Amino acid sequence: MKQTALLIIDMQRDVVDVMLPFASKVVEPIKKALTACRRNSVPVVHVVRVHRPDGSDVELFRREKFRKQSFLVKGTAGAEIVGELKPVDGEYVVEKQRFSAFFQTELPLLLKSLDVKTLVVAGVQTPNCVRATAVDGVGHDFEVFVLSDATAASSVGVHEANLFDLKNMGVNVITVGEFVRLLK
Amino acid sequence: MKQTALLIIDMQRDVVDVMLPFASKVVEPIKKALTACRRNSVPVVHVVRVHRPDGSDVELFRREKFRKQSFLVKGTAGAEIVGELKPVDGEYVVEKQRFSAFFQTELPLLLKSLDVKTLVVAGVQTPNCVRATAVDGVGHDFEVFVLSDATAASSVGVHEANLFDLKNMGVNVITVGEFVRLLK
Repeated sequence: MKQTALLIIDMQRDVVDVMLPFASKVVEPIKKALTACRRNSVPVVHVVRVHRPDGSDVELFRREKFRKQSFLVKGTAGAEIVGELKPVDGEYVVEKQRFSAFFQTELPLLLKSLDVKTLVVAGVQTPNCVRATAVDGVGHDFEVFVLSDATAASSVGVHEANLFDLKNMGVNVITVGEFVRLLK
Repeated sequence: MKQTALLIIDMQRDVVDVMLPFASKVVEPIKKALTACRRNSVPVVHVVRVHRPDGSDVELFRREKFRKQSFLVKGTAGAEIVGELKPVDGEYVVEKQRFSAFFQTELPLLLKSLDVKTLVVAGVQTPNCVRATAVDGVGHDFEVFVLSDATAASSVGVHEANLFDLKNMGVNVITVGEFVRLLK
């Protein structure tokens, strides 16, 4: 697997501790993929959702909700990446305000600069940010892999239904174990 | 429903006759929505996928497939919109090369020029182009509606699973009948 980058999506404290509690179960599998990438010098991009305190950059449909109970405010503890997955020197952090990591962010430019051709996506949640990122990755002509056991949704049914659709859109679905073996 | 536009996605002959035969069942419901928009002077955008004959603008994952059996080649009969839904004077046609109607197309500029705030999405197929367009519409802060009976997938299960996810991403799901009543 040459010219590969690992994208870890939204593994932030507000997400894991409050918004999507099921995300806690993918911390360990993601850590396994992350460790393998570090050992094999595969670039890692930590994608985080951050918002301004006034909520002006939150999606319109939940801007009012944010104003009642804010989340992922840049600079707060809740916006930090969970301890087990904290970036180390040489890893990248890309900020986003929407579901897809490609939505008006620096990600396409960063991946071009790194000469990346293959994306491996982990994080949460499968139907929203993971899927939107994977579909945009296909749109940008990357070869895209989603790690089935390092992504999660509110139910197994939703998770599986999304992996099914993604396969039909040209996305490869593999396990963390398979990914680690491909790196060797 | 002021400042609304109807987006009709991929209702082209190659799609309906060859690629996604289930699309034929939504021609009539879409026609009903289209007729109501024409009566109420709601802008209509016909979104079509078109490709160059050499396939250089097809997604990487199916470029080889295209070269064996091309589809939706610009200027061919297969790329035309089906007869029942043909655009009339004053309606817009936007070309795309990817799942989402927003993916590097003129759609955002057109909708801004028209001062549109609300998108109503019809066409095929629910998990791919319909969903990617709806999710990008949310990203661009439109109020987004998907017409449940004027969109379709390879199975009812896939269709329903996608509508379920879309509702969780801020998309409104209504029937053509409900849409027509909202226009009055």
